[in-house]
Amino acid sequence: MSTIVQKFGGTSLGSTERIKLMAKKVILETKKGHDVVVVVSAMGKTTDTLVQLAREISTKPRKREMDMLLSTGEQVSISLLTMALQQEGIEAISFTGRQAGIQTDSVLGNAHIEAIDTSRIKNELAKGKVVVVAGFQGVTSDGDISTLGRGGSDTTATALAAALKAERCDIYTDVQGVYTSDPRFVPRASKIASLSYEDMLSLATMGAGVLHPRAIKHARVHQVPIFIKSSFEKGKGTLVYGQSQENGGTPVIGVTFEENVQRVDVSGFEDGKSLRTALLQKLAAHHIQADIYKQPYECTLTLLLKEQDVQEVLSILNEMKIKRLFSHIEQKSGLSKVSVIGRNIKSHPDIKVEMCKILLKNKIRVKMVGKSSISVTAVVQKSQVHNAAEKLHTGFGLDYVVMEQAVL
Amino acid sequence: MSTIVQKFGGTSLGSTERIKLMAKKVILETKKGHDVVVVVSAMGKTTDTLVQLAREISTKPRKREMDMLLSTGEQVSISLLTMALQQEGIEAISFTGRQAGIQTDSVLGNAHIEAIDTSRIKNELAKGKVVVVAGFQGVTSDGDISTLGRGGSDTTATALAAALKAERCDIYTDVQGVYTSDPRFVPRASKIASLSYEDMLSLATMGAGVLHPRAIKHARVHQVPIFIKSSFEKGKGTLVYGQSQENGGTPVIGVTFEENVQRVDVSGFEDGKSLRTALLQKLAAHHIQADIYKQPYECTLTLLLKEQDVQEVLSILNEMKIKRLFSHIEQKSGLSKVSVIGRNIKSHPDIKVEMCKILLKNKIRVKMVGKSSISVTAVVQKSQVHNAAEKLHTGFGLDYVVMEQAVL
Repeated sequence: MSTIVQKFGGTSLGSTERIKLMAKKVILETKKGHDVVVVVSAMGKTTDTLVQLAREISTKPRKREMDMLLSTGEQVSISLLTMALQQEGIEAISFTGRQAGIQTDSVLGNAHIEAIDTSRIKNELAKGKVVVVAGFQGVTSDGDISTLGRGGSDTTATALAAALKAERCDIYTDVQGVYTSDPRFVPRASKIASLSYEDMLSLATMGAGVLHPRAIKHARVHQVPIFIKSSFEKGKGTLVYGQSQENGGTPVIGVTFEENVQRVDVSGFEDGKSLRTALLQKLAAHHIQADIYKQPYECTLTLLLKEQDVQEVLSILNEMKIKRLFSHIEQKSGLSKVSVIGRNIKSHPDIKVEMCKILLKNKIRVKMVGKSSISVTAVVQKSQVHNAAEKLHTGFGLDYVVMEQAVL
Repeated sequence: MSTIVQKFGGTSLGSTERIKLMAKKVILETKKGHDVVVVVSAMGKTTDTLVQLAREISTKPRKREMDMLLSTGEQVSISLLTMALQQEGIEAISFTGRQAGIQTDSVLGNAHIEAIDTSRIKNELAKGKVVVVAGFQGVTSDGDISTLGRGGSDTTATALAAALKAERCDIYTDVQGVYTSDPRFVPRASKIASLSYEDMLSLATMGAGVLHPRAIKHARVHQVPIFIKSSFEKGKGTLVYGQSQENGGTPVIGVTFEENVQRVDVSGFEDGKSLRTALLQKLAAHHIQADIYKQPYECTLTLLLKEQDVQEVLSILNEMKIKRLFSHIEQKSGLSKVSVIGRNIKSHPDIKVEMCKILLKNKIRVKMVGKSSISVTAVVQKSQVHNAAEKLHTGFGLDYVVMEQAVL
């Protein structure tokens, strides 16, 4: 019997009516003869409400207690979706992360899945039951409840799909699929019918919010196809699978942006190179991804951070400062990043030049520009980021293109 | 170091402000040098909200999923109260029922605590931490989350107090203590300063809602004193401890009532005695307490049930009916029970006579009357129950009495 994993996000489960609607999507797959594992997020705005309660009580709630609090959201969803399935006569059972065998490391608030003991899930599937698993959560070796950070439910879904050698993993969400840019702000962005794990990873790493990089990596390991599709509208969605297709033309596949970026400058150190290494290690231990630029003539390390990581990085930096590894920290907000994404961009130096040209022509000031193997990124004023994305989308010939990026 | 257990009910935790207030009560005890274990219920009306969600989805949600759903309420409370303590600089840690080592049987929705592995709690107490435990929940030997039914958080508190050999167990609630009757409806009811486990058990078994009989039994086993007191108002509350005091006077200690009682008549059987035994066994297996009266000349068994148990008892009865153990079930609602509680009532036949006399004189029709070693109970029309309680309270000389019932 083939297993498929379905994942429903918070918007898809925003009300009891919607939960019943999603139950019907699950039932459709069972009728096709699949074994079905369902992964769910917390209902609608539940997580925000819980975060608000914590804020009313504590200026700096500890991660263990935040994970204890937030994990209740998914637990509510699993029980309600299971009830909805049972109400329709479908045998089903709900599992918390722990009951589903999801073992994580101890980086609370942003844990990584280390192993999945699928025996209990397989047992219930063998009995003909749909298994409904709480996304976003697991259990540490100490028996503490951990959460997986941003995109955690997607990660649960693809990691389970990989562990169960599922035929595919369907991610139901509130958008129609993956686009060449965010269609809410770049109206001529077009939906990508299919793309490779690598290209999806590039887009996701540089800010395409539809799927978290970790989720993609779990699927890639066991080559599980991911379908990203709308919970509410018909349409084929986007298939993530296989290898990149070399099409000979422009290597640019999309334009991404992150609206809220903070810049933190660290200065007053002796050895910038070893400080950078030490810092990267610290951030990796906390599972925080950051760009770190070394300004060669200024004796400054510049970090570009996602807004949600700022508090934690600052407390890491303050510890290092106390140990006199450097003497100054400076913080700047109101910035955004916009990136042009493509394959092997390093071997196309013209892309960086072209990017700066397009932005300059449109009176968008570039504050910093950086390059990786998959992207060129410009830091701009927050107020200009949507305009920048739109102009780059046009400039790199992405308007009106129907994208089919992967060989299947 | 002496350990004390504090328990806060839902009203006491009805808002983040109130949670902070309860944290202060915890801190007071730590300042006195106690090791403190705190047991909490779900915040305010959380449980009702969750039940409502389940009802929107399912006409008859299964117990496993209800327990999965409802147990999230207490999990929210433990994390928030722990944050509130940490915010005040107190070291604290939250535990779900499972993490607190609370093993239950598999009667989901109404489970009994079978054992408590206190090692993890003791470990954290030894580190100087306050341990905040989710009431009302445990884990079965299958690893499923179970809930303990009505009064479940009180039961968690006293069971933990017993297992930890605590110095005392403080139950913070929205009333001032235990009364000779419910003061909301019997204005001349007076607070009882102290009473024995036996007397408290008698009151609780016959409908005094302030503490569940199970909770009292756990405390009695290890002779842990229980203090019942108000979360919001000053006052000494009620102490439950020790042996009953023989005071030579009237044995009546209180008047209790249950407003919503359903009567179910079962008839069309051959052997009433064995049917009664079989039925009592079935109900016990589901942890349901019911009065079963055998009408000697009518070939009818009459069950008096708490409203929340009716659905479950009916489905048990229907199974028995299918097996042709009897042929008819008849149901009557709109009834209430009012009871006069005392010690060794069987040896005071005058109490039953006196009770009927008082009710008759006040034009309250007695539909049934029953007796046990601790009570005489009359079934009356629901509309008359408060009046009946008030008249019995006066009639048995309980008005204006200051009660001190236990030898300490």
